[in-house]
Amino acid sequence: MSTIVVVTPNPAVDITYRVDEQRLGVTQRVTHVQRMPGGKGLNVARVLSALGAASVSVLPLGGDSGAWIAARLAEMGLPARAVRIAGETRSTVTVVDDVSHPTMLGEPGPELSATEWEHLGAAIEAEAAEASVIVISGSLPTGADPAVVGGWVRGAREHGARVIADVSGPALLAAAHAGASVLKPNREELLGATGASDERSGAQRLLELGAGAVVVSRGADGVALHSPDRVVALPAVPGVSGNPTGAGDAATAGLARALAAGDDLAGALREAAALGAAAVLRPVAGEVDVDAYRRFVGQLPLPHEERP
Amino acid sequence: MSTIVVVTPNPAVDITYRVDEQRLGVTQRVTHVQRMPGGKGLNVARVLSALGAASVSVLPLGGDSGAWIAARLAEMGLPARAVRIAGETRSTVTVVDDVSHPTMLGEPGPELSATEWEHLGAAIEAEAAEASVIVISGSLPTGADPAVVGGWVRGAREHGARVIADVSGPALLAAAHAGASVLKPNREELLGATGASDERSGAQRLLELGAGAVVVSRGADGVALHSPDRVVALPAVPGVSGNPTGAGDAATAGLARALAAGDDLAGALREAAALGAAAVLRPVAGEVDVDAYRRFVGQLPLPHEERP
Repeated sequence: MSTIVVVTPNPAVDITYRVDEQRLGVTQRVTHVQRMPGGKGLNVARVLSALGAASVSVLPLGGDSGAWIAARLAEMGLPARAVRIAGETRSTVTVVDDVSHPTMLGEPGPELSATEWEHLGAAIEAEAAEASVIVISGSLPTGADPAVVGGWVRGAREHGARVIADVSGPALLAAAHAGASVLKPNREELLGATGASDERSGAQRLLELGAGAVVVSRGADGVALHSPDRVVALPAVPGVSGNPTGAGDAATAGLARALAAGDDLAGALREAAALGAAAVLRPVAGEVDVDAYRRFVGQLPLPHEERP
Repeated sequence: MSTIVVVTPNPAVDITYRVDEQRLGVTQRVTHVQRMPGGKGLNVARVLSALGAASVSVLPLGGDSGAWIAARLAEMGLPARAVRIAGETRSTVTVVDDVSHPTMLGEPGPELSATEWEHLGAAIEAEAAEASVIVISGSLPTGADPAVVGGWVRGAREHGARVIADVSGPALLAAAHAGASVLKPNREELLGATGASDERSGAQRLLELGAGAVVVSRGADGVALHSPDRVVALPAVPGVSGNPTGAGDAATAGLARALAAGDDLAGALREAAALGAAAVLRPVAGEVDVDAYRRFVGQLPLPHEERP
C-alpha cells in the first residue's frame, strides 16, 4: 500500500475534564483529566495506524503545547512532519459529566505568519510528491485564508495524488473548486457551506465546482456517495450506540485507506461506514474497535442507489 | 530587610478563558486566553516583589506544567527553589464573561511520593535557616497529610523564624498546634476549620491550640487581629471596588513584609489592610496598585479595639 499523507491544519491539545455535575459560576473539582493530541487529521492518522496503514502527518506546531504533541506522536509511533511556528499551539477543554451534554471551550489558536504558511505549503507539497492519497482534515488556524486549502489540493493533484478533504465553510468550496477527489462533509457542513436546502443540491453544487465525488456522513442514517449522475447510500450499522465524536474521522480514514489500496469509491464507502460504526463503540475520538470493524464490513449490505 | 521564604505547596498553571457568555453543553469560542503561574503563595511572592521585598519561593514542580512555571518565575525575577516531582503540576481553568460569576475548574493535581515529601520538607528547612519570616500559603497537594504543615511550622520556629500560615481545614489546625506566629484565614475558613459559630470563638480555639495571633480577613468589613486578650480591627478602605481575588494574598504579603521589617502586629495589620485594598484595584491576582497602596497606608485610621 502506498503512503497516505494527513494534513492537520489546526492541531490542538485536547483536554477532557470530568466533573460530577457541570455548573456555571462556581468552583468545580475535576475528578479526572485526560490530555490527547487532537485535531481531526490526527484522529484520522490514529485510526489508520490502528488498521496497520502507514501515514505521515503534516501539521504546524509551536510552543510548549506543540512540543507536547510532537512528543506524544513520537510515543504513539505516528510519523509526522511538523512545521515549527512561533505561536503556541491551541488547547481545547471539554467538560463532561453523566448529566449534560459536554461543554467544549476552544482556544482561538495561533495565527501563522506568511513565512509559516509558505513552510506549511512546502511541507505538504514535499510529502504529496511521494503519496498516493492526501487527506486534509479539520479547521484552519485563526485568520487563515480558506484559499490555502485550494492551493494544497491543486498541488497534490498535480503530483497525481488523490485528495480527500474533510473541511467546512469556504474551505470546502475552495477544495471543490481546486478539484478535490472526494469531499467528506457531514450534512450540516454541506448545507452550511453551499447554502443549499437539501443534501443532493448541496452535493451537486460541490460537484459542479469541480469535486470528483462527495461523501456525506448522515449520522444515524449512514453515509451517501454523490457523483454527478447518481447517489449510492449505505445505512448505518444497526444496533451500534456510543460516542459519535470521531466517527466522521474514522470514516475519512476508511476512505483514505481504501483509495490507497486501489478500491473504487463504492468499496471505499463500505470501509467508511464500517469504520465510522467501529469508532462509535470507543469512548475516545481517534480510536476504533478493530474487531467490530472487521465484523461490520462483512455485515453491511451492498450500497443501494437512491433516486437523486 | 531579611529574607522572606514563601512556601506554595500546591502550585498551578492558572488559565483564564474569556467567552462572550458562559453556557453549558455547547461549544464555546474562547476569545482571550491568559496563563499565569498560580497558587496563593506565588501571588504572595509577586506582591512582595512589586514592593521591592526579596523572597524565595519553595514549591514542588513536575512535568511540562512545572517546567513552564519555573521558566515564568525566572522571567519575572522571582527566586525559587523548586523540588522536582514525578507528577505533572496541575492546571486550573477559570471561565469568565461579563454576565455570570466565573466558573473555576480545578485539576486534582499530582500526589507526592514519600521521598518527594521529604525533599520538600528539607528544602523548606534549608531556606528557613536563612529566613526571618516563612509564609505557607494555599492548598495542599492531593492526598497530603495536613500534619506536614505542622512539621514545617515547627522546623521554622526552631530556626527562630516567624511563620505566617494562610491554609485551611485540618492544615489550619495543624499550623496552630505547631505554634505558627500568625494564622490568616478568612472568616469562612476560620469557622469551617474550627467548627466555631462566631469569629472570636474560632480565633480563640486557634490561639488555645498554640497560634501566636490570628488575622481574619473580613472582606468588605476589613481585617481583625485576634490575640488571647484582645481584638483590634481596621475597616476596609472606603470606596474601593474591583476584583477581590488575590486580596487575601496581598494582605498576607503585607503581614510578611511588616514582620520581616521588625514592625509589631498592629503595624503589620495596617500593611495588610492597605495591600488588600490595593489588590482589589487590579484585575489579576498577585498584582497590587503600588501607588494606591501608599495612599491607603496614609489614609487608614488607627486600629480600634473591639469588645471581644
